[in-house]
Amino acid sequence: MDVVKPIIEEEITKKLDITRLSSNGLIDSFWIADFGCSTGLNSFLAMHVITEAIQNKFQSQRSIINAESPEFYVFFNDHVKNDFNTLFRSLPPERHYQAAGLPGSFHKRLLPKASLHFAYSSWALHWLSQVPNAVTDPTSQAWNKGNIYYGGARQEVCDAYSSQYAKDIESFLKARANELVSGGLMALLVPGFPIKFDYSGPFYKGQMVMDHIASILIDMAKKGRISEEKIDSFNFPTYYTFPEELKAIIERNGSYSIERMEIFDNPGKYAITTAHAHASVYRAVFEDLMTNHFGSEIVDEVFDSYRQKLEASSALLLPEKDKSIIIFVLLKRKLE
Amino acid sequence: MDVVKPIIEEEITKKLDITRLSSNGLIDSFWIADFGCSTGLNSFLAMHVITEAIQNKFQSQRSIINAESPEFYVFFNDHVKNDFNTLFRSLPPERHYQAAGLPGSFHKRLLPKASLHFAYSSWALHWLSQVPNAVTDPTSQAWNKGNIYYGGARQEVCDAYSSQYAKDIESFLKARANELVSGGLMALLVPGFPIKFDYSGPFYKGQMVMDHIASILIDMAKKGRISEEKIDSFNFPTYYTFPEELKAIIERNGSYSIERMEIFDNPGKYAITTAHAHASVYRAVFEDLMTNHFGSEIVDEVFDSYRQKLEASSALLLPEKDKSIIIFVLLKRKLE
Repeated sequence: MDVVKPIIEEEITKKLDITRLSSNGLIDSFWIADFGCSTGLNSFLAMHVITEAIQNKFQSQRSIINAESPEFYVFFNDHVKNDFNTLFRSLPPERHYQAAGLPGSFHKRLLPKASLHFAYSSWALHWLSQVPNAVTDPTSQAWNKGNIYYGGARQEVCDAYSSQYAKDIESFLKARANELVSGGLMALLVPGFPIKFDYSGPFYKGQMVMDHIASILIDMAKKGRISEEKIDSFNFPTYYTFPEELKAIIERNGSYSIERMEIFDNPGKYAITTAHAHASVYRAVFEDLMTNHFGSEIVDEVFDSYRQKLEASSALLLPEKDKSIIIFVLLKRKLE
Repeated sequence: MDVVKPIIEEEITKKLDITRLSSNGLIDSFWIADFGCSTGLNSFLAMHVITEAIQNKFQSQRSIINAESPEFYVFFNDHVKNDFNTLFRSLPPERHYQAAGLPGSFHKRLLPKASLHFAYSSWALHWLSQVPNAVTDPTSQAWNKGNIYYGGARQEVCDAYSSQYAKDIESFLKARANELVSGGLMALLVPGFPIKFDYSGPFYKGQMVMDHIASILIDMAKKGRISEEKIDSFNFPTYYTFPEELKAIIERNGSYSIERMEIFDNPGKYAITTAHAHASVYRAVFEDLMTNHFGSEIVDEVFDSYRQKLEASSALLLPEKDKSIIIFVLLKRKLE
């Protein structure tokens, strides 16, 4: 957020046409939504930056538009099992908005038509709505046997992941296009890689993580702790795009103009420096998925082994092994 | 809900003018809010009844209004510490609405101006926004020394409670009048008593509960477990109104027409038949308040003693000791 704060502020100042956000003239209430907010810690800062920039915009145009700043409503979205209790209890007391929780998949419609003025999503769109069906289907060319991710896998597997991603982003863009008012803005922070990888080697960090976890699971299958079929039917439902791919999906949707697109280094790669911290972070990411698929009893064992692997060979912890970037896109809902 | 279901259905059929809910003609999205929904168990049934009745209304008028049923949005409101996680995870899968959580006090504005079409609140408006200041102020005529409720207390204490109630209901009605569209409906289920009690004797169940708990606390103060000052500064923040009082507050507000007002027996009084169940219910109601005021360490002791008192003298468990009723009011936001 520190990196994109000046950009979001600049774009709101330049691109948000507050006189054209409502068909009836000026708006009383300004709606913002954060899609994939988790428990809110990063979201609260983003919502502060956005609401402050919009308030400044209203104040600077006060002589022209002759209206006070509107009331702000922020919809915090995440899936139904997200910890909204923690989110609500952590809301900053000094905030300038009424908060609402919006449970459900952001791949579907969540808000009324033409109600939303500013959409935001950070570090959430890499989550697929599901594991691509083909990769767990033994009759498919894209069956990802003995593997839990698309990195290092055959081209068919990579294509299945990339198709699912395109389908999901299309659903997201379509739902938001319905919800956004004409002229409404959408700021996306999407994790990805700078160029299209061929994914044929374990040369980036996310894939090394997956390779370690897959090999731990395979060892556990050899010991009879879990079945091989269970591993074959488990795949990790995220996908890291690259700028050209994301741009093509947005352009194909047709409802938005791309106002700005920038690439940033992923500051997360410098944040985790010990094997213990690394294992904790990935445990948090994997825990629900693994518990649902294999049962809770194997989770301790998997992440103890994972931490030991990292301690034995700590190359994974070097920031330069992590090639991930953040793609920042600012979109404007076209006027209809 | 079983009792008021036919009434709500009838009133929606007769009183909801779907052609006049929006200044621009017909509405795309129909907003409902439940104020004080708790974890939703009773709310889901109410929201089902309301949405179904409105859908039927739209379908029956289809030939006249030439429009499909709108999309439904239900805002579930309760205070910030409510368990929204349980609520979201219990949402009926077959529901016909998008759900949102709306954390915050219902004595304040929570939704945009003129956005709400149907407001609902059941068994929640007896909660005061705070203990009336005067009853814990040793310099006030209304100081409620050695007592934790207004029943059986001096007239000044009763007046302080009743004033706080009027102020809170006024705040609630004012906030909702802002949020409701002209012609929007509001259904309230408010606990109360059939007539104004003089509260001078422990002749109704709620007061007997409070008297038992007060005497347990006083015994604990004698043993030095808590201080007498702590008891004097603890009062229970609920108030049971009576129909004439509630009606007067609504009429004073002036924004609503009273379309219907009915009195029902409180079915809750027949539901709790054992000392154990009774102690559990009141523990759930009291626990947070007591923990915040006295600390968590006394709660077990208080409710163990409470259960023993009930077992020794079970008169409290007789339904006829409970004089409480439910006041059902259906209001319509006046056209402006």
